[in-house]
Amino acid sequence: MDKTIDRTAYANPGDIELTRKAAGDNVELVTDRLRKMMPECGFGELGTCCVMCYMGPCRIDPFGQGTRVGVCGATPDVIVARNFLRSATGGASSHAGHARELAILLLEIAEGRAPGYKIREEGKLLSLAEKLGVPIDGRPVNAVAADVARKAFEDFGRQDGEPMNWIRARASRKEYEKWEKLGLLVSNPHNEIETAMHRTSMGNDADPMNLWIATLRMGMVDNFGGLMLATDLSDVIFGIPSPKVVTANYSVLKEGEVNIACHGHNPILASKVAEWADRLEGEAKAAGAGRVNVVGICCSGNEMAMRYGIPYAGHEAQTELFLVTGAIDAMVVDIQCIWPSLPAIAKCYKTRFITTVPFVRHPEAIHVDFRPEEADERAQEIVRHAIAAYGERKAAGIRARIPDVSSKLMTGISVESLVSVLSAVDAKDPLKPVIDAIAAGEIMGAVGMVGCPNPKLRDGAMAEKMAEGLLRNNVLIVTTGCVNHILAQGGFLTSDATERYAGPRLKKVLTAIGHAAGLGGPLPPVLHMGSCVDNSRIYDLLAALAGKLGVEISQLPVAGSAPEFITEKAISIGTFFLAAGILVHVAPAPRVFGSPFAVSLLTEKLPGVNGGKVLVAATPDAAVSGILAHLREKRQALGLPLS
Amino acid sequence: MDKTIDRTAYANPGDIELTRKAAGDNVELVTDRLRKMMPECGFGELGTCCVMCYMGPCRIDPFGQGTRVGVCGATPDVIVARNFLRSATGGASSHAGHARELAILLLEIAEGRAPGYKIREEGKLLSLAEKLGVPIDGRPVNAVAADVARKAFEDFGRQDGEPMNWIRARASRKEYEKWEKLGLLVSNPHNEIETAMHRTSMGNDADPMNLWIATLRMGMVDNFGGLMLATDLSDVIFGIPSPKVVTANYSVLKEGEVNIACHGHNPILASKVAEWADRLEGEAKAAGAGRVNVVGICCSGNEMAMRYGIPYAGHEAQTELFLVTGAIDAMVVDIQCIWPSLPAIAKCYKTRFITTVPFVRHPEAIHVDFRPEEADERAQEIVRHAIAAYGERKAAGIRARIPDVSSKLMTGISVESLVSVLSAVDAKDPLKPVIDAIAAGEIMGAVGMVGCPNPKLRDGAMAEKMAEGLLRNNVLIVTTGCVNHILAQGGFLTSDATERYAGPRLKKVLTAIGHAAGLGGPLPPVLHMGSCVDNSRIYDLLAALAGKLGVEISQLPVAGSAPEFITEKAISIGTFFLAAGILVHVAPAPRVFGSPFAVSLLTEKLPGVNGGKVLVAATPDAAVSGILAHLREKRQALGLPLS
Repeated sequence: MDKTIDRTAYANPGDIELTRKAAGDNVELVTDRLRKMMPECGFGELGTCCVMCYMGPCRIDPFGQGTRVGVCGATPDVIVARNFLRSATGGASSHAGHARELAILLLEIAEGRAPGYKIREEGKLLSLAEKLGVPIDGRPVNAVAADVARKAFEDFGRQDGEPMNWIRARASRKEYEKWEKLGLLVSNPHNEIETAMHRTSMGNDADPMNLWIATLRMGMVDNFGGLMLATDLSDVIFGIPSPKVVTANYSVLKEGEVNIACHGHNPILASKVAEWADRLEGEAKAAGAGRVNVVGICCSGNEMAMRYGIPYAGHEAQTELFLVTGAIDAMVVDIQCIWPSLPAIAKCYKTRFITTVPFVRHPEAIHVDFRPEEADERAQEIVRHAIAAYGERKAAGIRARIPDVSSKLMTGISVESLVSVLSAVDAKDPLKPVIDAIAAGEIMGAVGMVGCPNPKLRDGAMAEKMAEGLLRNNVLIVTTGCVNHILAQGGFLTSDATERYAGPRLKKVLTAIGHAAGLGGPLPPVLHMGSCVDNSRIYDLLAALAGKLGVEISQLPVAGSAPEFITEKAISIGTFFLAAGILVHVAPAPRVFGSPFAVSLLTEKLPGVNGGKVLVAATPDAAVSGILAHLREKRQALGLPLS
Repeated sequence: MDKTIDRTAYANPGDIELTRKAAGDNVELVTDRLRKMMPECGFGELGTCCVMCYMGPCRIDPFGQGTRVGVCGATPDVIVARNFLRSATGGASSHAGHARELAILLLEIAEGRAPGYKIREEGKLLSLAEKLGVPIDGRPVNAVAADVARKAFEDFGRQDGEPMNWIRARASRKEYEKWEKLGLLVSNPHNEIETAMHRTSMGNDADPMNLWIATLRMGMVDNFGGLMLATDLSDVIFGIPSPKVVTANYSVLKEGEVNIACHGHNPILASKVAEWADRLEGEAKAAGAGRVNVVGICCSGNEMAMRYGIPYAGHEAQTELFLVTGAIDAMVVDIQCIWPSLPAIAKCYKTRFITTVPFVRHPEAIHVDFRPEEADERAQEIVRHAIAAYGERKAAGIRARIPDVSSKLMTGISVESLVSVLSAVDAKDPLKPVIDAIAAGEIMGAVGMVGCPNPKLRDGAMAEKMAEGLLRNNVLIVTTGCVNHILAQGGFLTSDATERYAGPRLKKVLTAIGHAAGLGGPLPPVLHMGSCVDNSRIYDLLAALAGKLGVEISQLPVAGSAPEFITEKAISIGTFFLAAGILVHVAPAPRVFGSPFAVSLLTEKLPGVNGGKVLVAATPDAAVSGILAHLREKRQALGLPLS
């Protein structure tokens, strides 16, 4: 690999400033807790701890002390596979739940039961309906929408064993055939989840290979019953993202304004809070504030920035620090990645911490039961909480300290908007310039950098250093999730970044595209494709490229990376990309090293079966060099130039 | 409590003999593995270990070393509640899967796609159909059956939030009203499972109370979407159990016969194996064997003994020892409690170990893909495996050693058959004799003893000693699951047992009922109500008694006990009985002691809310005295005599 990676510290000065403030304020942060938790349990890290029954808890010592199997006889290969499948099930269940809420909302909109929402993208709805076999000719939009929602419900209810509607309608052809051969065409996401929990309970599946196939199937549930369903329906209801430049980092908070931070994942909540923040500006002014300023954290940030240009505050691991600014009047959350530490910190600054989902609550939070049927009423209630807090917090003398750090990013790169940008270069064949650039070696390959900001790796700036190394080697990056917050704050999502980070050949092609598309500068070298559920957009893009080339996705010079992952959702997403035949880099190490079977399968055998492969590397150098080697291998197999 | 409990060792001489043989044969047993695993992990035992994300693994030291919360900020109360909910979800998913297979089979029978099966209980089908609102008048049985199956599928597919069909049709009225008030009327079992996995994933539910309510809801899923659905449909397809006397213990194996042990849970498999064992007797004789002898282990044993009088071999923790006899030609398994240790032991004795379910496999097993559509073909294949093994094993000189231990039990006590027995006493009002006896203090109360044989407690004969103590105090016992194997081997399920163990008043009433019913002796003091899924029968019985008295189930002088539980299924079953307002005794200690909130909720607060209460006691004395105190309290509240 290129050895010229700049070792500049990427630490966000705002993080440093607020970490110091937290210490002064006697606020414990994640970094403090992580330090106290070290060393973490080695059995857990190896995946060889089992609590599936009460003959245990069992744990297998890799050095052969004690027993080499669990009390029931489960080998480390079985224990690791069961634990890993349960993690993937936790992730896929989260995404299926997210998607199912949207399907329920779509039906409510169609039936006039959710007056606060509407169908913004009729075109996408109709194209989706056609793919799903829903008749559209001469029918009212709402009737079509209701049937599309019912197609989703049909998947969650089917007992006929047929592949999901969403797979039949939305999978790429070559991958569909591959998945059919491998037995990965799942039928009902809920049956898979139930069976995964059943087979991993004590005394059921004891065949590691069978359990790992189930894990790949869970990846299919995640993508088709979670990510893609969520993205499709979110686009229909909230709009397809389009390119725009947005502000990021701590300075999105504004003194003298009512600051609301939306944190979580589903645009159902955040879109309404943003709307009512504007509509209640008068009340904010009456309370002495300039206006109501809504900013987005974590994937709520991604969803709102890419669609509505709402300021892009920060990532999951900065949520505590955003509270420590003392500038936030209300933090409003829906689902996922809402650390239980937050409400106590919010209290220190008299920030109102508001939960909104019945199954995501906290004893110290205010709960506003946000239902789509009463979205406008509940959103007003939430905004008024923030306005009331503004006055109270001023009166109590809470002083804000907003670090003066700011960056810009271009966001809103959906497949649709990317095609639209590229149409300016070649109107007849928009993907041709990209494919030509890949073929010519101007773009050596592409990497999807996704996932979370793990405090274990954040100090080392794992994501930024990897991005730098990849770009320098002419590798294009697409991102989703909190990694995009990291890279946005690092300044990777601008035209300037192309000048600064891209290797000479990549710079040339991005500059040409940028100018042809009238962007007034190069296309950024890191393209923001959305939130975690929008990893489905990356699959769609890969499918489009592979389809045009007439190859499998597994043959493309591409890779995925979750360089600092935290959640079970990252596991189920990664598992889908393995099923799609892609190299998936992860750090920290997945909990599989207690199983020789798993290590061999994921790094040696699976590549020969479908091209999927896991690369574990916890330093940027090792990750970049491993990915580059993989991209070269794929280029070579396609007969493309290597430099 | 009564201090006269007999301290006689209950150890099964067969277990001792075979444990010695195993040592000689160099076969490692569960007791060996358990010894090597000790001491087990204290964090796991307290429930304060968390692997829900990759900022961990976290563990909270109850003595305050290190951090007092997880890296994400989750408190021990949150960590314990999440872990416990996931365990209950594993259990409820197992039961839902079991039940769903039966619903699929019922539809296949109705549509003529499963020619090997038929509807044996039209009466039960029609009564079920009426409760479910399925029209029956003038319709062919198959049409009704198909609609009953579809009512089950409707529950698994519904997104309307309405309570499950199975709850509306089958819940007792007072409990239905209570559950409605408490928010426990679940709608779709699969939505609950998905949401449980979602809310327990990192950064979601952080409200211990909310998580424990979800756990009670999972109990509702377990009973109505699992146990009761399975029992109802099994009765329709395989017949309602009726009283019969059956042989138990190792001597059910027969030298000179082809021995097949069916192990697992679902009668779909075992019923067909038993049928073809008879039909292929000629082939067995041709191979030099007397016949094909099918015996049942674990809940396959319960399902087959109570319906067809098939010999009742032994419990889950004896499965290894049954193989060590060297007398088994084939062990055929379906789902649940199939220890991964078994195939290797089977190999030592050239026993063919046959898995039959796609998601319960083992690399060292023979897999026969048993599908109801081809049940006859596959059952023949399985029986022929056993016949072939018989010859091979003889040729290889495998010598059998079948311990000469045998006992009898009366089995087959369904609610229907119990009412039928009691009708002989009072034809107009069959439950009256029981209610009168409870009111008069002849029966002080009733305890459902259920669950598994945990090697941690088996040496201490926890179940037998508890049974003895309860009976001596005039408490009637009903049993399900592997506990019934234990008590059958201990001789508790016979008329003689009433003479030997029952307190004087209990003896009197059981003798009177037995004679009136023409049993030729007293009714046994321990009544076998079936397999683990048949805990629904216990609920039905309690509902009938409470309904007749016009009280809630929680007011009855009854309790549940899982005195040696192992599985996640026991957790979800126990959780349902908590939701129903019953005292549930468990041993070993559930993994909740790391959470002050959980301990207080389950032992102090919940009793005041709905009557449900957890009693943890790991010695028979403590368990019996705790239960007796509870029964007295309930009697007192009803104004019944205490002695």
